Amino acid sequence: MTMQNDLLLRVLSGEKTERPPVWVMRQAGRILPEYRAVRSRLSGFKELVETPELACEVTLQPVDLLGVDAAILFSDILVVPEAMGLPYELIEKVGPRFPETIGSAADLARLHPVEPEEHLRYVMDAMRMTRQALDGRVPLIGFAGAPWTIFCYMVEGGGSKEWSRARRMLRSEPVLAEELLDRITEATIAYLNAQVKAGAQVLQLFDSWAGALDSTLFERYSLPRLRRICEAVDGAPLIVFAKGAGWQLERLAALPCAALGIDWHTPIAEARRRAPGHVLQGNLDPSVLYGSEAEVREATQRMLSDFGRGGHVANLGHGVYPDIDPDRVRAFIDEVKRSGVEG
Amino acid sequence: MTMQNDLLLRVLSGEKTERPPVWVMRQAGRILPEYRAVRSRLSGFKELVETPELACEVTLQPVDLLGVDAAILFSDILVVPEAMGLPYELIEKVGPRFPETIGSAADLARLHPVEPEEHLRYVMDAMRMTRQALDGRVPLIGFAGAPWTIFCYMVEGGGSKEWSRARRMLRSEPVLAEELLDRITEATIAYLNAQVKAGAQVLQLFDSWAGALDSTLFERYSLPRLRRICEAVDGAPLIVFAKGAGWQLERLAALPCAALGIDWHTPIAEARRRAPGHVLQGNLDPSVLYGSEAEVREATQRMLSDFGRGGHVANLGHGVYPDIDPDRVRAFIDEVKRSGVEG
Repeated sequence: MTMQNDLLLRVLSGEKTERPPVWVMRQAGRILPEYRAVRSRLSGFKELVETPELACEVTLQPVDLLGVDAAILFSDILVVPEAMGLPYELIEKVGPRFPETIGSAADLARLHPVEPEEHLRYVMDAMRMTRQALDGRVPLIGFAGAPWTIFCYMVEGGGSKEWSRARRMLRSEPVLAEELLDRITEATIAYLNAQVKAGAQVLQLFDSWAGALDSTLFERYSLPRLRRICEAVDGAPLIVFAKGAGWQLERLAALPCAALGIDWHTPIAEARRRAPGHVLQGNLDPSVLYGSEAEVREATQRMLSDFGRGGHVANLGHGVYPDIDPDRVRAFIDEVKRSGVEG
Repeated sequence: MTMQNDLLLRVLSGEKTERPPVWVMRQAGRILPEYRAVRSRLSGFKELVETPELACEVTLQPVDLLGVDAAILFSDILVVPEAMGLPYELIEKVGPRFPETIGSAADLARLHPVEPEEHLRYVMDAMRMTRQALDGRVPLIGFAGAPWTIFCYMVEGGGSKEWSRARRMLRSEPVLAEELLDRITEATIAYLNAQVKAGAQVLQLFDSWAGALDSTLFERYSLPRLRRICEAVDGAPLIVFAKGAGWQLERLAALPCAALGIDWHTPIAEARRRAPGHVLQGNLDPSVLYGSEAEVREATQRMLSDFGRGGHVANLGHGVYPDIDPDRVRAFIDEVKRSGVEG
């Protein structure tokens, strides 16, 4: 089956293309009324994640409704710790919560390795179903959380501003911390490789809380696991998005991955200077989409021109906010697409 | 009255000193059992903030118990929006909450200018009392939140990870946003000048959520108000701490202030490169204090050596976490003090 739109694959393989491909982090989700219609029939977010037909349906929505150049499977990074033996709940308007957390070697002993086709069968089924339903229209992206980010949730038990409990474990129990990080790493490798087998054509690794680490901790605890994953995952180009870690870009640029995600805090010129020659993905501040259509188009143009020609996957610099008007997202996407026509 | 320990004042005036002065953000607070003893007798945090005798008592504690080179008045940045007409509550284990928020011109019309000796009399009394009680042992620091940071709370009504509602107002209602920011700015100037009159010898401006702005928004909405405050506040050196805004350091370095606070995310070499010749304050990752005493001392030495001789106020790169052992804080302080003896 040939891809009708393989822009993203071509850019990630280093090819020069007529324009940057564009997709939007959290494109499948609450900004779309069509998503909310599906969601409102269900008992909760997890039912959506765990029902392949529904996950497939909402994954396709932004391809049809927004015109993005890639689909990203609707799922959650926290399915991995759950598959390891630590179940989570999603509490409306609060966020994820793990009734049990990891604080000792005894807690660690209760975790087990992940067999994706067994413990995460619903993701694999959703991936297969979506790949088939896409029928080559656009590439399908799979994803996982990076080990440090998953570690944060497993130790804290929920969201946090500072992740000081997770960092406390790095400082006070480094051996336990390394062991937990290694287990998450192996589970993640198995999971990502299984996603590729099930149909993922691109992968993204979200180190959403990389910004909670200083250079020393990042280099010791996060970076080696990102490297291990880059080296052990096969068959699809990998995008590493370490949010809040702009200061670490030189180190990230040494990873054997296809592209680096850039958050909206990081000035584009700094990113280009620190990761020269790399494919970069990002990085419009999602709050730009609260402005007028003209402002969205103008900011998008500025972003495109700052990244320059080639080596760029257009995206936001963070997930789109739920109360953003889908028309503004369309204006962003349209402006990227027009850049090819005019350029 | 001459100061017995004027290290901080001398460094902030540009003098070379035998060693860096050291104090700790949130030094008066939950890490000290002596603080918790005072706090446990009260109905809540606000009673402590609003009772000058008690605020004075806990302000002095770290001078006696930790040996810091400066006292910082125990208070809260949210007293300013309250004085403007927007009361807040502090909910145990949750954080601040404003029952009413600012979302429209009508909301704005309900705010009023701040007369510090009238609306914030309890802070002024606490400042006078503390200055007298200190009796010249160490300088007394006053503080306020920066306009953007106060704006965040007034618009969102409580803490937030992304401050997307506050940023939405910047994008969608810039005129309203500018007006609110200007009113906060004028209240802050009156407040800081009154603090100096009441005895503050150094001031710190906390732009705790500067990191939620990209360069464009920071330059338009936060920076001009920081400048206005630097220019309008008289009689005490001002430290500007824009947390999460390491990328903006070149711009911050152009402010007419005595020193810049550096958060622990920002590599020290980058800070020195972006703000050459400036007095910098910071920036040990507070989570270092979860480690062993030897690790604390080693990391402190590394920090001191990275900042180099002169133009440095030793501090953490963020407030100390409540569950940190005071002995580790003492090790940090002691290591800074020893650097003078050995150097």
